[in-house]
Amino acid sequence: MSKGKTKGKNKPLLRLEELGKDILKQIKKKKNPEIAVPIRALSNVEFDEKSKTVRLGNKISARYFFHIAHAKKFLQTLEVAEASHGLLKEDKHASLRDVFYMVKRTIPGTKVNVVDEQSESDSVIEDLELITSNSREQLNINANKNGSVAGEVIIEDKGDKIDWGKLGSGGWSIPSNVENIKFKKVKAKYILYMEKAAVWERLHEDKFWKKQNCIIMSSQGQTTRGIRRLLQRLGSEYKLPIYVLTDYDAYGFYIYSVIKYGSINLAHISEKMAIPSVKFLGITSEDIEKYKLQKHLIKLKDHDLSRLKQLKEYAWFKDNKAWQKEFAAMKKMGAKAEIQALSSRGISFISEKYLPEKIKDKEFLD
Amino acid sequence: MSKGKTKGKNKPLLRLEELGKDILKQIKKKKNPEIAVPIRALSNVEFDEKSKTVRLGNKISARYFFHIAHAKKFLQTLEVAEASHGLLKEDKHASLRDVFYMVKRTIPGTKVNVVDEQSESDSVIEDLELITSNSREQLNINANKNGSVAGEVIIEDKGDKIDWGKLGSGGWSIPSNVENIKFKKVKAKYILYMEKAAVWERLHEDKFWKKQNCIIMSSQGQTTRGIRRLLQRLGSEYKLPIYVLTDYDAYGFYIYSVIKYGSINLAHISEKMAIPSVKFLGITSEDIEKYKLQKHLIKLKDHDLSRLKQLKEYAWFKDNKAWQKEFAAMKKMGAKAEIQALSSRGISFISEKYLPEKIKDKEFLD
Repeated sequence: MSKGKTKGKNKPLLRLEELGKDILKQIKKKKNPEIAVPIRALSNVEFDEKSKTVRLGNKISARYFFHIAHAKKFLQTLEVAEASHGLLKEDKHASLRDVFYMVKRTIPGTKVNVVDEQSESDSVIEDLELITSNSREQLNINANKNGSVAGEVIIEDKGDKIDWGKLGSGGWSIPSNVENIKFKKVKAKYILYMEKAAVWERLHEDKFWKKQNCIIMSSQGQTTRGIRRLLQRLGSEYKLPIYVLTDYDAYGFYIYSVIKYGSINLAHISEKMAIPSVKFLGITSEDIEKYKLQKHLIKLKDHDLSRLKQLKEYAWFKDNKAWQKEFAAMKKMGAKAEIQALSSRGISFISEKYLPEKIKDKEFLD
Repeated sequence: MSKGKTKGKNKPLLRLEELGKDILKQIKKKKNPEIAVPIRALSNVEFDEKSKTVRLGNKISARYFFHIAHAKKFLQTLEVAEASHGLLKEDKHASLRDVFYMVKRTIPGTKVNVVDEQSESDSVIEDLELITSNSREQLNINANKNGSVAGEVIIEDKGDKIDWGKLGSGGWSIPSNVENIKFKKVKAKYILYMEKAAVWERLHEDKFWKKQNCIIMSSQGQTTRGIRRLLQRLGSEYKLPIYVLTDYDAYGFYIYSVIKYGSINLAHISEKMAIPSVKFLGITSEDIEKYKLQKHLIKLKDHDLSRLKQLKEYAWFKDNKAWQKEFAAMKKMGAKAEIQALSSRGISFISEKYLPEKIKDKEFLD
């Protein structure tokens, strides 16, 4: 069942219907129909010192039906709202790409399509997140599916009881939408999130989560919204610390930054996505020396340096001494390194020495 | 437990030890130590009409220790063999990247590294697959982890009993290595493999596998070796037909081609990887007309056309009339289309109409 149906009196459905009714009312009053949409642009994005996340500001713009620059976007907004409304009614979920095809049609009597590119429907979906105060997932529109999880956790999902500790070498495959999962039992002292599935397999084979009493979670590449929401829900509902394990490179730091502070293009949904409490576990420049990884350094390329420069200037890192020191150390070293470089010290060095030691000594970057 | 320990009297371990003993024997005889390695190059790859897979030919080359062009590769071969031997002994698995770091060291008294790039250890691992007649997975070296599966199947893995039909919206996360999985119950008439996780989520939500009595499996992007082996094992051990569902584009056709016939760079392992019985379900050019997807066609780009040209000339497609017709139809149309275009006909059109109809009418490309 969709969250819309179980909680908050069908909230997303109601919100979409309110939107429709409001427009109808305007039409009956013979007004030029308008929708108020908060502005999602860099000019309206700020780092909120209080919540420690990237947030949208207060700027709002009106989208009019009778307006040569607004009419199409107005139509798109209502078409996507209708698609989401249908999904919620039918209790079904669609991907961003599905929604694009669902609303893609030619306006009768013209040669104009409602949408030509997925970016158009995507953008309207983000508007609807703001207009309805519901996330895309709550509107039954899913992002990508990726990632695995293991630990002493029992959940209930779609009527199934699933024990994350009894799923062999594979683990549970994290869905794109985790809004309706119910946690039945969570026995863990912390969550370890890593960017690489191969590292997850290493830790899983070594029974790391059992020995350390933790939950291990990974993606392969980007951190999907499903993973971020799962981390956030577990972290907040069970007050579990979350540690992030990435390569020692600017992209690894960026993965951490997005999980912790949110990102500019998802600033409007930071409260649901950002997790200000997460800590960076490694790999750090200190680790390179301490664990003798110097031999496995890889020279920085131009794109590494420019990404590093960007990170350095982010509002949330600008006054963070520990991170500025870290950025400077990487620049000075002129090199990056991979998590797997630890394998040069022995295949289970990471699970038997590196991680237990760092976690015990609380050697985090915050 | 590794397959090496349970089956065939520790076969991979034995084979590696035989390799070591053989070299020792040569040294004792004061011979120039050599290893016989089948040649893995296009010149030694052929399409085997009998098995209908891409196979390695019979050409073998000798790798000598005292040979200026061979010495380093000889050393690499033994170093990687030792790493794999250690993994098998310890009953642990490593990724390709791990193995690279495990063997990466400077040869004492020189400035020469055993390996400088992962491609070097990767290449030697492929040699060892041939030398030992064991796959990389049997040598406890894993490829990437990706993909999800659901269906009325119960397996045993690492001591856990896992019911693929009771894993909520996520499904079972397919590990990189499926060699040691035991199938306990398999109730299915066929397997449907799709390239897109979003399509898998659609079918899963619609309980397609339950209604159709099948197994649904997906990756996200490339088909990992773990998925290919899982498909092959289920297909051959339970005589299940396997249908492949991809976008209507040259890359979708290529995904099918690799699963069915194998690929040039894995020709040496075709018997473990290729699945000659798989059939292409769609999207096909006929589907475009039949299901009225013309409006959602996307114009072919240069890279699509050159990939299409390559496919057309593959030995296994050259005399295949149905496929040649398909390639010609795509070229004539000058366009491709995505699976999700079916969503324009309704979100569950794919699971309620398109797939059941095509499977019932056996509308496959073979």
